Amino acid sequence: MIDFPALAEIVTKSPSKIVMLVADGLGGLPHPETRKSELETASTPNLDRLAGVSACGLTTPVLPGVAPGSGPGHLGLFGYDPVKYLIGRGVLEALGIGVPVAPGEVAARGNFCTVDEDGVIVDRRAGRIASEESAALVEMLDTIDVPGVQASVYPVKDYRFVLKLTGEGLSDQVTETDPQRTGAKPQDVEAIAPEAAATAKAVNDFIREAWSMLAEQPKANMLTLRGFSLLPHLPSMVDRYLLDPAAIAAYPMYRGLASLLGMKVIPTGGTFADEVATLRERWDEHDFFYLHYKPADAAGEDGNFDAKVETLEELDRFIPEVLALEPDVFMVAGDHATPSIMAAHSWHPVPFLLHSKWTLGEGVEAFNERALGAGSLGRFPAEHIMLQALAHADKLTKFGP
Amino acid sequence: MIDFPALAEIVTKSPSKIVMLVADGLGGLPHPETRKSELETASTPNLDRLAGVSACGLTTPVLPGVAPGSGPGHLGLFGYDPVKYLIGRGVLEALGIGVPVAPGEVAARGNFCTVDEDGVIVDRRAGRIASEESAALVEMLDTIDVPGVQASVYPVKDYRFVLKLTGEGLSDQVTETDPQRTGAKPQDVEAIAPEAAATAKAVNDFIREAWSMLAEQPKANMLTLRGFSLLPHLPSMVDRYLLDPAAIAAYPMYRGLASLLGMKVIPTGGTFADEVATLRERWDEHDFFYLHYKPADAAGEDGNFDAKVETLEELDRFIPEVLALEPDVFMVAGDHATPSIMAAHSWHPVPFLLHSKWTLGEGVEAFNERALGAGSLGRFPAEHIMLQALAHADKLTKFGP
Repeated sequence: MIDFPALAEIVTKSPSKIVMLVADGLGGLPHPETRKSELETASTPNLDRLAGVSACGLTTPVLPGVAPGSGPGHLGLFGYDPVKYLIGRGVLEALGIGVPVAPGEVAARGNFCTVDEDGVIVDRRAGRIASEESAALVEMLDTIDVPGVQASVYPVKDYRFVLKLTGEGLSDQVTETDPQRTGAKPQDVEAIAPEAAATAKAVNDFIREAWSMLAEQPKANMLTLRGFSLLPHLPSMVDRYLLDPAAIAAYPMYRGLASLLGMKVIPTGGTFADEVATLRERWDEHDFFYLHYKPADAAGEDGNFDAKVETLEELDRFIPEVLALEPDVFMVAGDHATPSIMAAHSWHPVPFLLHSKWTLGEGVEAFNERALGAGSLGRFPAEHIMLQALAHADKLTKFGP
Repeated sequence: MIDFPALAEIVTKSPSKIVMLVADGLGGLPHPETRKSELETASTPNLDRLAGVSACGLTTPVLPGVAPGSGPGHLGLFGYDPVKYLIGRGVLEALGIGVPVAPGEVAARGNFCTVDEDGVIVDRRAGRIASEESAALVEMLDTIDVPGVQASVYPVKDYRFVLKLTGEGLSDQVTETDPQRTGAKPQDVEAIAPEAAATAKAVNDFIREAWSMLAEQPKANMLTLRGFSLLPHLPSMVDRYLLDPAAIAAYPMYRGLASLLGMKVIPTGGTFADEVATLRERWDEHDFFYLHYKPADAAGEDGNFDAKVETLEELDRFIPEVLALEPDVFMVAGDHATPSIMAAHSWHPVPFLLHSKWTLGEGVEAFNERALGAGSLGRFPAEHIMLQALAHADKLTKFGP
């Protein structure tokens, strides 16, 4: 969270409404032939026009040079220091498939793998076993009884699954079983803090039982576990900002993340059109809406430049519909860049605009990486976005006499 | 203060002279019809020309989105972290009317109010009683004897006054009496730290005596007190920067604030012409001059766009006169923006330029919010201005071997 204790004294409730549209993986890099980025290539007349009358800049998700995962990328956008507040891999994987994690529960990411007769890993992904096959195995593992602990297993995709432990006094202070290479055996879990002894024993009991269950499988005859994690304590946006915030996101992980921050997660359909319809239907019920647009990141991760261009053009066509609701503050932000030529999340500065009746409008000519850099917000930490939003929505009073 | 302990090792005395012209409430926002800000509307040929040969940028007074009062706004300009160093409301109010506050003294802001027969507040501002009326009441309150403490009362304006306590072992760790709403009674003061018990008792004694004195008044028959504060410990600019700094400001509050930072406060007249004349007369005596220009903020707070434009044009006409003194470093800065359309202090980035023989001169075409953003300084914390000033004045040696 921003290191600004006086925020509690100056934040105030008001009827104004804020919309934060997060275009996942928004930023990009030029195509080697055209030397134009995805945003520069896309036709985005609505975003371009809006940029001209908005406060514009480029955000740094975590630190310059640091490419964030979806967890840190989003925490920054909502004003939480992404270096301080970490969401563990197990918890994030569970949220990603819509499995809720309650305080005190431990989640871990699981992989099916192939071991030889000596128990040495020969394939860390069990031949990338198909989802249908692994789903049947997950169902079997879910029947395992571990004394004193309830072990639940959920399928993710291909060779991946989630293990969730429910019980008294569980701890995430245990080592991982995944040796991270072939030619080694999966390790037993060890407690790295005294209070984790029972958790380590429960996990090892589970693994031994699972091993005997899987022994006859041709490919997925063993498993590895890593990213054991408890739910982090995240102060609620309700308390921190005096907002009544809502999340509209088609993908489970973003819904789960939003719920950790105290947002109300509104059920919606699987497309962005559904999300915008939901926004319109529930407009009167909240004063802050987090609206998540996934396709830009997906196309970028696929390394598909043209597809990413299309997703940005699609996003642009929805802008008038959102603006028609007349939000007092409308922001377009990204959790990180996903340049198609990298086919991965990157550390590059992320396009940002904020529009309200209190924005100067700097005459930025287009919504893209190069043009937005000339805006009045300059390059700034994503963690400061929420302060800007609250100020422009008349939700912050003067600091100090 | 900037978190840079090595400053003490690299700062050095030199004969060069620095002028920091602080145009209070400098930044603005566009007029709804013309879409031009006050600075963009004003004819400021001297500032425009200077911008072209200066290092230009936009400053963030405290944090993005945070609109500062005059206290934090000015502390940042002089290199003091405005989140860490807080000047209490009582002390600032005292400084604002030219009442000095010594170490160990406690100042509070007082309001006259109207209570009904049950002691319940029915008007928190005593019908906005006129200054002349309240001055007579203040004189009366000033006669109150409190055992062990000297209580002095000073008029501010309308229903407002300052209470200052002088004595041994006073503390500001007491609650406020102002319930901040009508329909409630003023509260007794309570100690929130053990060492504040005597202070709380003294204030309550004062209030009881004041209440009986005021009982027969038609409107101002009671008072409330808040913002109890001691002088904060602020390291001196003399020690920190090895400067012999002076303040030239027509308004008492800015003089008081400057004196807290170790500046010598030079007597001057009530207009900016007087201030510039004082600067010329005392040119040989100091190496740092803080020159305060108030009218821009006053017009902005009045919500008078045209008046603010005029104040900026007036300021511009004085620029050649200041430059004629040939300061080695000349800066134009603001403690915060005061957009006329908001009629209030705001959080928006504040225009800034610095001219010296070591400035690149980026060819910025005009002195306004949009144009200056393209300057080489970009957007940066006001707290860094003093480092820039010292460097450009050849008062900082190389850091590290």
